[in-house]
Amino acid sequence: MRNWEKNVRKVVPYVPGEQPKEENIIKLNTNENPYPPAPGVKLALQGLQEEHLKKYPDPAATQLVEALADRYGVKPEQVFVGVGSDDVLAMAFLTFFNGEEPVLFPDITYSFYDVWAELFRIPYVQLPLDGHFRIRPEEYFAANRKNGGVIFPNPNAPTGLELAPDAVEQIVRENPDVVVIVDEAYVDFGAKSALPLVEKYDNLLVVQTFSKSRSLAGMRIGFAIGSEALIACLNDVKYSFNSYTMSQAVIAVGAAAVKDEAYFRKTVQAVIDTREWTKEQLRRLGFVFEDSKANFLFATHPKVSARELFEALRQARIYVRYFNKPRIDNYLRITIGTREEMERLTEFLEGFLRGKSAVM
Amino acid sequence: MRNWEKNVRKVVPYVPGEQPKEENIIKLNTNENPYPPAPGVKLALQGLQEEHLKKYPDPAATQLVEALADRYGVKPEQVFVGVGSDDVLAMAFLTFFNGEEPVLFPDITYSFYDVWAELFRIPYVQLPLDGHFRIRPEEYFAANRKNGGVIFPNPNAPTGLELAPDAVEQIVRENPDVVVIVDEAYVDFGAKSALPLVEKYDNLLVVQTFSKSRSLAGMRIGFAIGSEALIACLNDVKYSFNSYTMSQAVIAVGAAAVKDEAYFRKTVQAVIDTREWTKEQLRRLGFVFEDSKANFLFATHPKVSARELFEALRQARIYVRYFNKPRIDNYLRITIGTREEMERLTEFLEGFLRGKSAVM
Repeated sequence: MRNWEKNVRKVVPYVPGEQPKEENIIKLNTNENPYPPAPGVKLALQGLQEEHLKKYPDPAATQLVEALADRYGVKPEQVFVGVGSDDVLAMAFLTFFNGEEPVLFPDITYSFYDVWAELFRIPYVQLPLDGHFRIRPEEYFAANRKNGGVIFPNPNAPTGLELAPDAVEQIVRENPDVVVIVDEAYVDFGAKSALPLVEKYDNLLVVQTFSKSRSLAGMRIGFAIGSEALIACLNDVKYSFNSYTMSQAVIAVGAAAVKDEAYFRKTVQAVIDTREWTKEQLRRLGFVFEDSKANFLFATHPKVSARELFEALRQARIYVRYFNKPRIDNYLRITIGTREEMERLTEFLEGFLRGKSAVM
Repeated sequence: MRNWEKNVRKVVPYVPGEQPKEENIIKLNTNENPYPPAPGVKLALQGLQEEHLKKYPDPAATQLVEALADRYGVKPEQVFVGVGSDDVLAMAFLTFFNGEEPVLFPDITYSFYDVWAELFRIPYVQLPLDGHFRIRPEEYFAANRKNGGVIFPNPNAPTGLELAPDAVEQIVRENPDVVVIVDEAYVDFGAKSALPLVEKYDNLLVVQTFSKSRSLAGMRIGFAIGSEALIACLNDVKYSFNSYTMSQAVIAVGAAAVKDEAYFRKTVQAVIDTREWTKEQLRRLGFVFEDSKANFLFATHPKVSARELFEALRQARIYVRYFNKPRIDNYLRITIGTREEMERLTEFLEGFLRGKSAVM
């Protein structure tokens, strides 16, 4: 070990889902949207004047913030934007989770939460989901458990399960002394957003992303909506980290995407329809899963291990996500692609399972 | 105070230079390049397929990293990229400055260093520049001063002064047990880079940016070059923070810019020529300044206060930077624009100073 390494921050880095570079694969492993972004995005890119790129972008990303404020019926002072929801969430951890008491989140959830807590040395406790992978809301305000904050995704990842709106509100209401973050990366695919609650609870931060329902994973845009007090705290920390995180291209493209409500509704509905169709097919093939409200399914098969299915799919150039982790290592997380992609997936699985049962 | 505020991280946020939204101003306040980015940037933007934006970008930003490795004659494993050099530097603070001993940097320097140290609760000591605003290298390895790391810009900001290459090497050599970061945001405008030293010292990290010499402040691209061991540590922390920081647009545009060496040399030389011309003019008008090697001058006038000049220039729609800070509150930092912009600046100053001396 070199001497300078003694001062190096020790981390267990997050391992993102594979981003294979080949073409002609079916990519159902990182919950991207199968449809292209709104047509206005192309125009926004074409409208970028490369001459302007020599200047710094607007540090407040006003154009994007105002488009979001309009869309969600809040003030611009209630909107914070970042480089994907990962950036927004990391800033929120850094800003709001500075207490001595542990931050609470589910044991099975978005894999970055414990990574950020470790990175920023935030104490945390992971609360177990129940036997059906459901969040137990009462655990988040148990009288005997002090906490320094709460975060959970709704729908949860990688399970896709929605926590009912009244349970979400209960968690927020029962935790008035800490910040509660609801990570709604997948909410547009059929779950109910906590956004209407931000006017009522100044300790609630709702985080969403352009990477899923708005088909812009490649541009890196996330946002948070909350009380003006919360957003001001977030901005103070963000400006202490990097004043100019949103490039001119990102600001223009993001604003264009959020303005096309009709396209948004149409593509989100197409994903929902394909998800419901895929549920039927997988059920027919013997898969078992809870009722996902996200753009993915979290499924297991009673006869073939998830690992084996994962490898076989990969051989067939169909990428899904497999987590080698306790309790979920016999599940596959399968992103909802186009109807054609899901047909190819289910056809392959049908053939594969038939071959297996012939052998067994 | 709300109860949840007790867990909020307290910061004194960095205040960036103004980004006025009006057109028809002469903007010499944030050290942007007056020339547009390389012509390849336009092509790269036009070549972006909006259809692809639904997918996550390559988390390793391979296309950009390889272009930089080629350009600087290092391995791709020696290159780290981020959202402007601010992101790169913030990650480097978080990664390398975790010791108990204070990190050392100059008292007059880039205003973000103490902001990051406060944000991440890193102990630090600011070492005074000498009476001519020069870094005193021996202060950075004084026998009686333990440290947890060193960072300084070269050329320094906002002074523009270069620290001689042998002094830079001495600081790196005499600090083998900590990481030494040389922040070379402005190095392309005539100072000597420490890059050749990275093969010799595995504790040296050199940070540069696309915002100045490559005319891409609007796209947010910075990079670091160092030993493979250093870069691996940085990547581990970066992947624990946000795996996908570089949008597809940024990766494509950055790679295009770095490949056009002829354009780079031509525009950098034009800025240098204009700087030297501006020095003559300001000297003629009675301004006093040290010999800047950056794309800005740091100047004072013996007869009129910097504050007054700043306000008068602003009235004339010429924006320069004024720092209301000890030791430098009678100086203006003036970015080098086009020759025409600098002519308008000096003409205005000439008239203004003539008017003042008629009154006095």
